[in-house]
Amino acid sequence: GRPMMKGSAWFNIFQHSFYRNLGKSGLRVSCLGLGDSLFFLYPCSGTWVTFGSQISDEMAENLMTIAYESGVNLFDTAEVYASGRAEITLGNIIKKKGWRRSSFVITTKIYWGGQAETERGLSRKHIIEGLRGSLSRLQLDYVDIVFANRNDVNSPMEEIVRAMTFVINQGMAMYWGTSRWSAMEIMEAYSVARQFNLIPPVCEQAEYHYFQRDKVEVQLPELYHKIGVGAMTWSPLACGLITGKYSDGVPESSRAAMKGYQWLKERVSSEEGRRQLAKIKELHLLADRLGCTAAQLAIAWCLRSEGVSSVLLGVSNTDQLIENLGALQILSQMTPQTITEIDALLGNKPHSKKESRA
Amino acid sequence: GRPMMKGSAWFNIFQHSFYRNLGKSGLRVSCLGLGDSLFFLYPCSGTWVTFGSQISDEMAENLMTIAYESGVNLFDTAEVYASGRAEITLGNIIKKKGWRRSSFVITTKIYWGGQAETERGLSRKHIIEGLRGSLSRLQLDYVDIVFANRNDVNSPMEEIVRAMTFVINQGMAMYWGTSRWSAMEIMEAYSVARQFNLIPPVCEQAEYHYFQRDKVEVQLPELYHKIGVGAMTWSPLACGLITGKYSDGVPESSRAAMKGYQWLKERVSSEEGRRQLAKIKELHLLADRLGCTAAQLAIAWCLRSEGVSSVLLGVSNTDQLIENLGALQILSQMTPQTITEIDALLGNKPHSKKESRA
Amino acid sequence: GRPMMKGSAWFNIFQHSFYRNLGKSGLRVSCLGLGDSLFFLYPCSGTWVTFGSQISDEMAENLMTIAYESGVNLFDTAEVYASGRAEITLGNIIKKKGWRRSSFVITTKIYWGGQAETERGLSRKHIIEGLRGSLSRLQLDYVDIVFANRNDVNSPMEEIVRAMTFVINQGMAMYWGTSRWSAMEIMEAYSVARQFNLIPPVCEQAEYHYFQRDKVEVQLPELYHKIGVGAMTWSPLACGLITGKYSDGVPESSRAAMKGYQWLKERVSSEEGRRQLAKIKELHLLADRLGCTAAQLAIAWCLRSEGVSSVLLGVSNTDQLIENLGALQILSQMTPQTITEIDALLGNKPHSKKESRA
Amino acid sequence: GRPMMKGSAWFNIFQHSFYRNLGKSGLRVSCLGLGDSLFFLYPCSGTWVTFGSQISDEMAENLMTIAYESGVNLFDTAEVYASGRAEITLGNIIKKKGWRRSSFVITTKIYWGGQAETERGLSRKHIIEGLRGSLSRLQLDYVDIVFANRNDVNSPMEEIVRAMTFVINQGMAMYWGTSRWSAMEIMEAYSVARQFNLIPPVCEQAEYHYFQRDKVEVQLPELYHKIGVGAMTWSPLACGLITGKYSDGVPESSRAAMKGYQWLKERVSSEEGRRQLAKIKELHLLADRLGCTAAQLAIAWCLRSEGVSSVLLGVSNTDQLIENLGALQILSQMTPQTITEIDALLGNKPHSKKESRA
Repeated sequence: GRPMMKGSAWFNIFQHSFYRNLGKSGLRVSCLGLGDSLFFLYPCSGTWVTFGSQISDEMAENLMTIAYESGVNLFDTAEVYASGRAEITLGNIIKKKGWRRSSFVITTKIYWGGQAETERGLSRKHIIEGLRGSLSRLQLDYVDIVFANRNDVNSPMEEIVRAMTFVINQGMAMYWGTSRWSAMEIMEAYSVARQFNLIPPVCEQAEYHYFQRDKVEVQLPELYHKIGVGAMTWSPLACGLITGKYSDGVPESSRAAMKGYQWLKERVSSEEGRRQLAKIKELHLLADRLGCTAAQLAIAWCLRSEGVSSVLLGVSNTDQLIENLGALQILSQMTPQTITEIDALLGNKPHSKKESRA
Repeated sequence: GRPMMKGSAWFNIFQHSFYRNLGKSGLRVSCLGLGDSLFFLYPCSGTWVTFGSQISDEMAENLMTIAYESGVNLFDTAEVYASGRAEITLGNIIKKKGWRRSSFVITTKIYWGGQAETERGLSRKHIIEGLRGSLSRLQLDYVDIVFANRNDVNSPMEEIVRAMTFVINQGMAMYWGTSRWSAMEIMEAYSVARQFNLIPPVCEQAEYHYFQRDKVEVQLPELYHKIGVGAMTWSPLACGLITGKYSDGVPESSRAAMKGYQWLKERVSSEEGRRQLAKIKELHLLADRLGCTAAQLAIAWCLRSEGVSSVLLGVSNTDQLIENLGALQILSQMTPQTITEIDALLGNKPHSKKESRA
Repeated sequence: GRPMMKGSAWFNIFQHSFYRNLGKSGLRVSCLGLGDSLFFLYPCSGTWVTFGSQISDEMAENLMTIAYESGVNLFDTAEVYASGRAEITLGNIIKKKGWRRSSFVITTKIYWGGQAETERGLSRKHIIEGLRGSLSRLQLDYVDIVFANRNDVNSPMEEIVRAMTFVINQGMAMYWGTSRWSAMEIMEAYSVARQFNLIPPVCEQAEYHYFQRDKVEVQLPELYHKIGVGAMTWSPLACGLITGKYSDGVPESSRAAMKGYQWLKERVSSEEGRRQLAKIKELHLLADRLGCTAAQLAIAWCLRSEGVSSVLLGVSNTDQLIENLGALQILSQMTPQTITEIDALLGNKPHSKKESRA
Repeated sequence: GRPMMKGSAWFNIFQHSFYRNLGKSGLRVSCLGLGDSLFFLYPCSGTWVTFGSQISDEMAENLMTIAYESGVNLFDTAEVYASGRAEITLGNIIKKKGWRRSSFVITTKIYWGGQAETERGLSRKHIIEGLRGSLSRLQLDYVDIVFANRNDVNSPMEEIVRAMTFVINQGMAMYWGTSRWSAMEIMEAYSVARQFNLIPPVCEQAEYHYFQRDKVEVQLPELYHKIGVGAMTWSPLACGLITGKYSDGVPESSRAAMKGYQWLKERVSSEEGRRQLAKIKELHLLADRLGCTAAQLAIAWCLRSEGVSSVLLGVSNTDQLIENLGALQILSQMTPQTITEIDALLGNKPHSKKESRA
């Protein structure tokens, strides 16, 4: 694998690890991707801000151009309630830039498509119609991965897996994945796929950062070994918590001060929040020692996890993006010793399932 | 099924609810069963004391006779390291009493069978040889349910499910179940059964009481609805913690004072333990108000859970047994209001997965 | 099938043997085809030179016209790194000549499609996008066989076979095959196809000449009998080694003197190379005795192998092509006696697997 | 896992590695086993001498007793032409010793059962009748693994796999395996098992020592990863070649001087043989440096291969057995450095299949 960078001396990508197979599938994705998550339900992901209402189309284009030319080949979006504006922006940029369709990976997520009752959830009707809407907004014939953006307990698993198989067999998607499903739900999808000879999912999108570890470090590796499902993670900076913006209270101009971010403000002020901020301060010191920023350390830490195929970044300006991409430079410093030090500092390393027989 | 009670005026069994289908299987089991778990590894189950080294064979016979004549048709045992004495005792009693084989349900559990390397785990060899050993000690041609007494990550699921299907097809067992498996592991077993046209498990044995709720109240109902697996629960009294023996410290004569129960003593003394004891005191007050004992309340509370097919009792004398069976009398008092009150008191009601689509 | 020859008295094709079924499939291919292999990686195939950068489009058209009018119905190409020029040339000629699409067989090979990470290998994405690119360059709606141009250990076999089945079900290809896969890998593909009711491969492309015999003479016949996979072979002249150009050293004007052919020069000079050249001299004498050229003998020798469905020729001018086609004239001289004589001369006859039971 | 040794200070078994899963199956076998191979066809295995015509029944019992009490739980035998005497001896010893059936693993091999035409090969008739004969001679109800002692090209794979599944479903064997099959044949068996929902093989028995590496180091690991088949290897000392008995020619009293060992004598005298003897001398020096015998080094070297589940020993007296078991003591000295040194010395390290995509 080889990223196509032109004269970017500012960071040194380890070529052998920059691209990874998505789970056990044959799809090769860059280990960093540009994300776009659904603001209303999961603001913490932070990735939403990339292509949404907060940044200009011009900034979005700048971000995608820098990313693509640095070797990033993964761009994640989603259908959304309002206008699907993120998909439209993404589609326009791709069209304008004229990049070969085969040189990048576009993923979108289906669940909340509109206000009508039939425009939500994972019915066959909405999976097919929702994806058609996304493709139309993206001006594409197909996406590479279509995700079920959360499980729908009111749709039978057989219907979901059949519909996903249908859109793949129609050529509307190359693969399908899940987003925020439990390990058991993913296993059920696999089970149904095997029972009826349908296509199983290849990937789960999950939140992953210093303070949310269990799923990505314990449950998904088990699924990876059993059924080959990979992990694409989001919110590596825990909504900015990790960059320490809020360590001295919430300034008026920050995201947490904005309407709708009340939850973040409250979280920062809670006892648990204060404990986390104390840890974040120590991580800043460690980052200083390693000669990188706190954000770079947090992203490199996510990438060190062997089950992680790609980490989705949520950035709102080019400086942030360039800083985040710099995380690759310190991957080689993620030694067992450093990992152990961070684990001790965090004090929340989850227990693995592998047990002795005694 | 029909309970065979002779003139037992001391409790009023609602026959329509005394027997329940085991999961979605056709097997009808009494909602209370006599348990026997592996002491050395899972002392907290408390059920082990029924047929083990602590009670005499005479007491065991008395307990089984009262239970059977009260309509209890479920007797659970396990192969064990040492001598399999529990199975031998159980087998002798059944033989002596001359009860019709078709009138009761015997279950045993396979995993730890002996000291040789090949006498542990869930290899095909040990499942078959282990069950043969159990049947020999029980003096039976078959058990009704054979349980895998924990998952074995070193045996492939296909091998486990094939071996369980084999012993069923050989007539050595009627059904098979799991014990202390994760929801995902059970789903994987189901998946493999469907993929290869083998027999899926019908039941999971799980610990369940006031202080351990998540699996039985959240995960197993989901499995029940998806694949029909029922729940057989143990340790309703949390090893005696709930009966309040230890609320004023650990007396010298109690189980917690015995060799090997150091863990229980420590637990009772911990901060968490003290919090639990405070709650238990309130539950005693509630039991007084409802006109029952704390043990009866705890057992009735387990039985109110719709996913529970049967609760295994761990008793060591006839008074305890009769008291425990009395829990059925207050089942009708497990009203939504009482349930809500207990939930508020415990403060640990797990969140259900069933969510709205909004 | 029937060759469409007009007045070609210069060679006598035994019609009953000129067309052969491709493996056990129903597809009838001429036993000689025009090849085009990937130069950069497998220069020895020699077949690349047909439609690549070394010959003019005019020459390419002349070669195809002669071949087609002589009854050759098989034309093999491949997607390539740079510009896919071979496919473009082939497509233009077919269009210009106006031959009925149903009268010939076009095959292409997918693996190395472009410089982006996602444009290589056998992911579902690249198989589909790569074949779409090939069809576009060829100006065709479908190819007859799409080959996986080597195995991709990083793509799961299920993904590969599903993608091949997909492109066939989409009408983009009639059949699929493998190129340079091991016997075990082909068997694994067959296994996966049977397990998931997908379409198994019909053919393996393999190098085959005097000095590379094992795979085509031992392994592929076994696969042919077991699962019907046929052999389409390339490099019958071992990159020109056999025609003896280099028997007295490498002349400046020859291919081996060109840039990039250093390996061939070195090979000819090695001890092993000298031994092979000695054998080639004897084969020249044998060819003289049989009244044919060394190239004709080598090609006829390949065709005598019962497992071979078709031999792909690599020629760069019309004289070579006409000479090579003449190999058919001496097929009847490939008697058991001659075969034995050549085997003795080569001294490398591989052992067959067919053994007695004793 | 824990071997049951009584006061054996003479060697230190690393408990965590003494037992290994057989391939990906759940069966736990000791990493050293006692072997018994078919003399007439595979004399080189050397394992034949254990229970055959060359050693007394008393010696056989001594060998088995020492092995069993040292934790060895794997005993391999085979049906044979003449009288099946090896199986009879083995069965008598097991019966006499009174070891629990569940504490050891017995394997036998079916192919050559008698002189009648129907008593050889892998027809359903002979697999079933042959195994019945073995069980009768062994005085056992079942073996743990039944091996197909070589492939039978005259029996369809479906018939073989169906017959193996039959004997397993009849309870005559726990698992089945292959012996001296090609990787492709094993894959075909797996394919047929998956296609018809039969039971796939768990293990291949293969020759493995310094001078025969390709299959166990390259092909079987690939099969292990794809379909879970493990390796049980034999002839770790290359028929005694490695112990250096013949390094100064073949003495009159040695095995190589006996009738029937003409081949060994010839081998030792060949050019290839002389080259091997030179290497063996260097290996002796290395063994001296590591403080072990050449045999111990050879066995430890086999055990270091991650794909190897168990190495079958062929010993004819107790001193040899105790010496061989001592190989475990030096397993910890099989460092990457030592492995590299041995590879350099042997000069025959096979190439792995894992390739880059570039």
